[in-house]
Amino acid sequence: MSLTDTPQTTRPPRTVAFVAYPGLTLLDLVGPLQVFSALQAAHDGFRVVVMSESRRTMETDTPLSVLPDTTFDQVPDPYAVVVPGGLVPTLTAMADQDLLDRLRRAAADAEIVASVCTGSLLLGAAGLLDGRRATTHWMFRDLLASFGATPVAERWVEDGPCLTAAGVSAGIDMALHLVARMTDERTARGIQLQIEYDPRPPFGGIDWGSVDTERHAPLAQRFLTEALADHPGLLARLHG
Amino acid sequence: MSLTDTPQTTRPPRTVAFVAYPGLTLLDLVGPLQVFSALQAAHDGFRVVVMSESRRTMETDTPLSVLPDTTFDQVPDPYAVVVPGGLVPTLTAMADQDLLDRLRRAAADAEIVASVCTGSLLLGAAGLLDGRRATTHWMFRDLLASFGATPVAERWVEDGPCLTAAGVSAGIDMALHLVARMTDERTARGIQLQIEYDPRPPFGGIDWGSVDTERHAPLAQRFLTEALADHPGLLARLHG
Repeated sequence: MSLTDTPQTTRPPRTVAFVAYPGLTLLDLVGPLQVFSALQAAHDGFRVVVMSESRRTMETDTPLSVLPDTTFDQVPDPYAVVVPGGLVPTLTAMADQDLLDRLRRAAADAEIVASVCTGSLLLGAAGLLDGRRATTHWMFRDLLASFGATPVAERWVEDGPCLTAAGVSAGIDMALHLVARMTDERTARGIQLQIEYDPRPPFGGIDWGSVDTERHAPLAQRFLTEALADHPGLLARLHG
Repeated sequence: MSLTDTPQTTRPPRTVAFVAYPGLTLLDLVGPLQVFSALQAAHDGFRVVVMSESRRTMETDTPLSVLPDTTFDQVPDPYAVVVPGGLVPTLTAMADQDLLDRLRRAAADAEIVASVCTGSLLLGAAGLLDGRRATTHWMFRDLLASFGATPVAERWVEDGPCLTAAGVSAGIDMALHLVARMTDERTARGIQLQIEYDPRPPFGGIDWGSVDTERHAPLAQRFLTEALADHPGLLARLHG
């Protein structure tokens, strides 16, 4: 379904490649994926794929398992890479050298290197956020500094090719911004209308002044210690 | 991850059952699924499943395929049923008597019968919205009247056991409301914080005054005609 009459192009489509790995937080992936799937339907200048190491069904942090449609090897040169986050599996993946190699290769010539939630910790661990302003889920924001990034408390942060979104649902906002950057505001608004993104949180937005982040620090620490039990070196670096 | 200290119970868990079928709009399903998966992690009084006719991988309206974790037969008596929507495949499913039978049976003793987007058209086709106020994706809202429902232009609509959400992303708002109804506001706010649902659409919310719904009516008609080409009786009823 397309609600916009976007000019079609004759160039080869630019590939927006989402990265999938076991245990990810599903909404991190699906929020922006839905936005870009709508772009693909509206505009033949873009192709959207979900890639992983192999095309195998994998679990997520919900009861739903997912099957990506392609592999890293089949997408050697994406225009944009989007890395979703998650909890313990993502924190553990900060030590997965094969995955980090894949991210570095995918990002090498990409115009856009994006993440949602703790996906930015994977970009950081891959050395892709060094010297960049970046964000992540609020519980883990300070960790970004360990990777040479400057942590920023914003809904999404844009620094050169790097776009990092805050926790989970922030990927929708970042994706609409990205669509506008890659096409125009009219196209982004058409997709917003299509997914009827006119949010009405039943109790309003988050009242950050009332969130006791100090109280959550030991919980974040516990997840990190559990995730990196077999990687004391990285754990020590993140504590530094 | 749980950010709340919800009292745990010793009752058998209440099952929140999401319905999956081929071609659904993935964010319709995953928005509320992420919210309820967080509830399940925080509160042992609830169990969350995704059920379909058989446990088989199915396509969605994105490049990602999904694998439900259970079948209709394995969940004979859910506490809550949530039906996601979609475009042509969902409109076609309005004529799928097997699926409608499944929905009627799942809803029979459920405390909560919910839908996202055009999922409410499936509830309507199953006869579950007769005499109820309800909503759906804005492009298809008028169709609800064909099923004896009163169409309402709200983010979500609650009428007895029936909760219907507007298009796609509205399922997140409805799910947070439902969590508060099923537990309390504090638990819902804890989940909102966990998924960092503090929306900032880059161009603001939808300006409904500027949306030319008349202009979109032929498009909605085209989708409906395509979807129900083999079901002229239902198509005529919806035109009535």
